[in-house]
Amino acid sequence: MTHPAAVRRRAAVIGGGVIGGGWLARFLLNGWDVNVFDPDPEAERKLAEVLANARRSLPSLYDVALPASGKMRLCRTVEEAVADAEWIQESVPERLELKHRVMTQIQAAMPPSALIGSSTSGFKPSELGAGVPRPESVLVVHPFNPVYLLPVVEVVPHASVTETSIARAQETLRSIGMMPLRLRREIDAHVADRFLEAVWREALWLVKDDIATTQEIDDVIRFGFGIRWAQMGLFETYRIAGGEAGMAHFLAQFGPCLKWPWTKLMDVPDLDDALVKKISDQSDAQSGMRSIRELERIRDDNLVSMMRALKGRNWASGRTLREHDDRLRREVAPPDWSQPILTVARTVPIDWTDYNGHMNEAKYLDLFSSAADRFMELVGCDAAYVAAGSSYFTAESHLQHIAEAHAGERVRVLTQLLAGSGKKLHLFHRLFAEGEGAGGAATEARLLATGEQFLIHVSLETRRSSVPSAAVQERLRDIESKHAALPRPGRLHCGQRD
Amino acid sequence: MTHPAAVRRRAAVIGGGVIGGGWLARFLLNGWDVNVFDPDPEAERKLAEVLANARRSLPSLYDVALPASGKMRLCRTVEEAVADAEWIQESVPERLELKHRVMTQIQAAMPPSALIGSSTSGFKPSELGAGVPRPESVLVVHPFNPVYLLPVVEVVPHASVTETSIARAQETLRSIGMMPLRLRREIDAHVADRFLEAVWREALWLVKDDIATTQEIDDVIRFGFGIRWAQMGLFETYRIAGGEAGMAHFLAQFGPCLKWPWTKLMDVPDLDDALVKKISDQSDAQSGMRSIRELERIRDDNLVSMMRALKGRNWASGRTLREHDDRLRREVAPPDWSQPILTVARTVPIDWTDYNGHMNEAKYLDLFSSAADRFMELVGCDAAYVAAGSSYFTAESHLQHIAEAHAGERVRVLTQLLAGSGKKLHLFHRLFAEGEGAGGAATEARLLATGEQFLIHVSLETRRSSVPSAAVQERLRDIESKHAALPRPGRLHCGQRD
Repeated sequence: MTHPAAVRRRAAVIGGGVIGGGWLARFLLNGWDVNVFDPDPEAERKLAEVLANARRSLPSLYDVALPASGKMRLCRTVEEAVADAEWIQESVPERLELKHRVMTQIQAAMPPSALIGSSTSGFKPSELGAGVPRPESVLVVHPFNPVYLLPVVEVVPHASVTETSIARAQETLRSIGMMPLRLRREIDAHVADRFLEAVWREALWLVKDDIATTQEIDDVIRFGFGIRWAQMGLFETYRIAGGEAGMAHFLAQFGPCLKWPWTKLMDVPDLDDALVKKISDQSDAQSGMRSIRELERIRDDNLVSMMRALKGRNWASGRTLREHDDRLRREVAPPDWSQPILTVARTVPIDWTDYNGHMNEAKYLDLFSSAADRFMELVGCDAAYVAAGSSYFTAESHLQHIAEAHAGERVRVLTQLLAGSGKKLHLFHRLFAEGEGAGGAATEARLLATGEQFLIHVSLETRRSSVPSAAVQERLRDIESKHAALPRPGRLHCGQRD
Repeated sequence: MTHPAAVRRRAAVIGGGVIGGGWLARFLLNGWDVNVFDPDPEAERKLAEVLANARRSLPSLYDVALPASGKMRLCRTVEEAVADAEWIQESVPERLELKHRVMTQIQAAMPPSALIGSSTSGFKPSELGAGVPRPESVLVVHPFNPVYLLPVVEVVPHASVTETSIARAQETLRSIGMMPLRLRREIDAHVADRFLEAVWREALWLVKDDIATTQEIDDVIRFGFGIRWAQMGLFETYRIAGGEAGMAHFLAQFGPCLKWPWTKLMDVPDLDDALVKKISDQSDAQSGMRSIRELERIRDDNLVSMMRALKGRNWASGRTLREHDDRLRREVAPPDWSQPILTVARTVPIDWTDYNGHMNEAKYLDLFSSAADRFMELVGCDAAYVAAGSSYFTAESHLQHIAEAHAGERVRVLTQLLAGSGKKLHLFHRLFAEGEGAGGAATEARLLATGEQFLIHVSLETRRSSVPSAAVQERLRDIESKHAALPRPGRLHCGQRD
């Protein structure tokens, strides 16, 4: 689906490490132009690596194509990078005097209305603001690695930032698919890192005391409470554990445990050479057979697959993905009814391939099913229509596979209405791989498959066939007459039941 | 797929709360008979509720049907419950003298070789063993809620338990789909709860100090590190953050943070009435619009969907699911080649339904695709054959939808070979809902759909058609001649390309 020429938005990324690179990818793949400054002579190579990871995973999160990527420009100075940016993301090393210096430089050159988000995990906005001329443009905007996939970002504005600016910051973050969480008060390490520190300290003791290895600790987390926490947090999980009596009951039952000596509460382990060696040896035994790049790809594929699973449930981070899909859909141009209708435009996601290394055959029908859904929506058989008690059910489908598709490929479906009178709906879909050469230049599309579908309008109450609403019928008649002028597929296979 | 009459295994569950009920469900749905003892007059109702949750979610984890459920027997005494059990799971309230009394009772009546797993989170095996006559049968076997879905279980044997008994305990837990994690040494609260306590204490401070609400804390967890921890734990995640320089580099970079005042290290918040009210009010605002049962179902659906997503990646808890599938498949009887082949027998999982409330149309093709995979495997085109460079690709499919299927229904596919000579493979699948009345009694099967598939043998190197191995060809010829005697479908739709 083609996005109408939108106003280009521009961000500046100052500091191009793993975090800065993640920000770059998020902005770029959501259609922003991005200027980058990093004095490291290796910066370009490092950014390209993060960007490659993001390009193979981020588009997989969505069921709608992302806008065309923005342009990245490597700049020689901070001033050049920020001069025409509306958002500046600062991700330089965690030294306060360095942050003060860089932010002062930024503020001298940036447009007056620009905002600066600092990726700091260690400093409070009051500390950042104390060393810059205009603290009213400074917010802590603390993301989590990988920044291009994980949605949450902690937002802690300096006390002098206006509510208007805060709202603008949140809207900017939402526009690139993130979930901004504004903290009520500033605090050392914000919120998430307080938990991570507490867990980290406990983990160091467990390894030091030979209770468990790094592998065993990771397993107890990822096979147990980790998977629980991917969808409900601490309090909702415990609310359930308390049963119908609720949270107060849970607190009465488990509160006293806090007094037990269950954590190494009073002490911090000394991270001496022996403990460092022990941890890194165990970590090598656990993960050393894979390179960091390989681990990153595995992690990203896992995250994408799980977040897509939550999308199916419309829950937690999956809901954030749906909201971004909706946002992307709103930017799609209306169809030209005289031609086959563009009903699907998306990337083949990572979790759609099978042991043969290509898109699984069932996903072809998945695409045609989505195409039919979109077609139905366009003729007025939308979510509200379904909620009111009617829908179309597929009675018969015929698929011809012509070429293979692979994860990461952009595909689109063009849908032709063969017949749409009475209770019947007869559709013919063509699935194309959108040829996209280097730099996003369009090349000739490649036909991957065709799908013929025969649907029947039903009452969701009786589960039997029924007549569509007058509005839907009229809409279908109109398209039917327009599509009658299109060439029809050679042989039809559906609609004659034996 | 019918499981050959296996020796019935029997467990006893002592204590029938949320945890005991979860154990009951795991054993029962994996084909064990289970005796239950709980003095609570409400026990039967409570167990039925946990069991209902488990029945709707646990079978969704697998791509193979679970064995027929075992029988549950509510017993009047501990002695009656344990008399013929090989495994006794103790989940009574966390009071040491009560555990000693109940375990002593159990040991007096259980078979001499039986093992006792204690679900305790608060006591060490040495403490449990100190008050019973035969500590050599006592192990801490600490699960996580919901026990019927989360795979991990911490195993901490009493010092006197033999290695043979420990191995038997681990094998028993694996046989019901769990992932036993044996700790190296006993420690207060074992491993996972040490982390949970540390996080819990930190969370109480954040709420008390008005930094974040329960909802905000849950969000920062589930939109951020929670989803990361569902697939890699603490150390593997940080290893990646350290980059190619590895774990020692990460420790050098982030170790010092431990000295910063980032956690409320030295203090435990007083859980007074004001804090209890604050937390339960915030929790009500966050989750009070849903009942606990509703939250449980949402949680279970989320967990099932995410674990299935990880199964697609063959990673973490998803790998545990695959191993259990393999275990279940090994128990399937070999096919009768003179009849249509039973190629799929499974439950429609929770994540396969769509907005119309029934199994999504693409999943019909998914089932037929799995049926074709299984058929190929049976004729020798298995994983090793594919790894050696050949496979069958589907060229054409035709589906007729006859009736709806719903999540939780048991379905099976019978596959008929229409033609299998040369490079071509022509299959006809019939999808049935296995009629299953109350108590698991089989009733008449219901035809849901038919699927005709036309496949071509290909070289995975050239991606072009090729001739199957002699062994595969011979196997196909043999089945073709046997299936020639079966009635053929009325009208065929595939194999004549236009």
